[in-house]
Amino acid sequence: MKNPGRLIGVGTGPGDPELLTVKAVKAIEAAHVVAYFAKQGRGGNGKAIVEHLLSAEKTLLPLYYPVTTEIEKREEAYRNQIATFYDQSADAVASHLEKGRIVAVLSEGDPLFYGSYMHLHIRLANRYPTEVIPGISAMSGCWSLAGIPIVQGDDVLSVLPGTMAEAELQRRLSDTHAAVIMKVGRNLPKIRRALEASGRLAEAVYVERGTMANAAMTKLVDRLDGDAPYFSLVLVPGWEANR
Amino acid sequence: MKNPGRLIGVGTGPGDPELLTVKAVKAIEAAHVVAYFAKQGRGGNGKAIVEHLLSAEKTLLPLYYPVTTEIEKREEAYRNQIATFYDQSADAVASHLEKGRIVAVLSEGDPLFYGSYMHLHIRLANRYPTEVIPGISAMSGCWSLAGIPIVQGDDVLSVLPGTMAEAELQRRLSDTHAAVIMKVGRNLPKIRRALEASGRLAEAVYVERGTMANAAMTKLVDRLDGDAPYFSLVLVPGWEANR
Repeated sequence: MKNPGRLIGVGTGPGDPELLTVKAVKAIEAAHVVAYFAKQGRGGNGKAIVEHLLSAEKTLLPLYYPVTTEIEKREEAYRNQIATFYDQSADAVASHLEKGRIVAVLSEGDPLFYGSYMHLHIRLANRYPTEVIPGISAMSGCWSLAGIPIVQGDDVLSVLPGTMAEAELQRRLSDTHAAVIMKVGRNLPKIRRALEASGRLAEAVYVERGTMANAAMTKLVDRLDGDAPYFSLVLVPGWEANR
Repeated sequence: MKNPGRLIGVGTGPGDPELLTVKAVKAIEAAHVVAYFAKQGRGGNGKAIVEHLLSAEKTLLPLYYPVTTEIEKREEAYRNQIATFYDQSADAVASHLEKGRIVAVLSEGDPLFYGSYMHLHIRLANRYPTEVIPGISAMSGCWSLAGIPIVQGDDVLSVLPGTMAEAELQRRLSDTHAAVIMKVGRNLPKIRRALEASGRLAEAVYVERGTMANAAMTKLVDRLDGDAPYFSLVLVPGWEANR
């Protein structure tokens, strides 16, 4: 291969276009191809954040997730289907890299922190020159918006998925100074019970769509149960000196 | 107060000036006063990162830590001294805010994530209009530089200070998918033993001065013991699918 392209995983941050790094802006401007994951028929959140940088001559490469139902997600067939999707997506990106093009793959938040980009990274980074540009994570956007010092000094921070079993969540919340609970969605009633049982409910703050125009936050005790949007999380501040 | 100023906690990211966010650049450019913490006789790492943005007409407000020894840090007197220092620093910032000025307080990494800025935040945010601009954390800079997918799916991430007792560190490393160990410094031999005892040593990656010009990384098993610089940390990747 005489002139290999360059793969760049670009963190777009949590939503506000001004939370892109200078490096991310330059990388998107320099890229020949901008790739992004999206649901069928949707524009993709990562793409919406960088819309102002997408000049007409840039090639866009949308990577549409296969349509699935919640039930399918627990099954082997789903896992195979999604692995095939990532294989095909990597091939689509590789075909541009083979032509010597710079391909920026957008990743909401921080690419290597729960980001879809990493599925392409593990398939391509050993074959092409690759760079990862970090982004502001959703959790960082949320605690900054809420103005909540999350950890200080020798605090331990635990990042926990809200999908976890209730007893496990409670155990971990009882054994950490600070916590961020991701994937709140339908798990809000369970998360509330686990926080109450571990004595941390009073401190917990619920943040919805941090750094987006319609962001909202409230003490979790003041928020009713019911589904929460995907872009929501719960913060349990640490800071030893305050406890 | 007719015309209060505005306090802005600005995350400068881990070292590379291009990892400043667009919002951080604009905030520093708009600020009348740029405040930063530094050791006596030193320029301050946060200031070095934004040097190119500090025009001649900007007022600089260095906040010099009191000179202390390691032994003193364990004592009550030290804690009082440092609290007094933060009180005085907050007063110095407040005197500019009272005059209606915009004061940007630089914070390496992410201001509310182990950042010194939060000591000013808790003293001033309830009295003046305040905004916190998130920054790329050192850990995010490191895993991006190393190209290591740190967490995916339902992984748990534990952020652990290397100052922790060995047994406690070992216990927590045995009970998490992924870990970031901060404050490596003199704790490297202990961290290595805890990783070995928890069966995680082979996966661990040591990163020194991530995103700085002289960054270095290596598998921890390939690195000799001995002191590590302050800007170093150990990454233990998670990602359920790979384990």
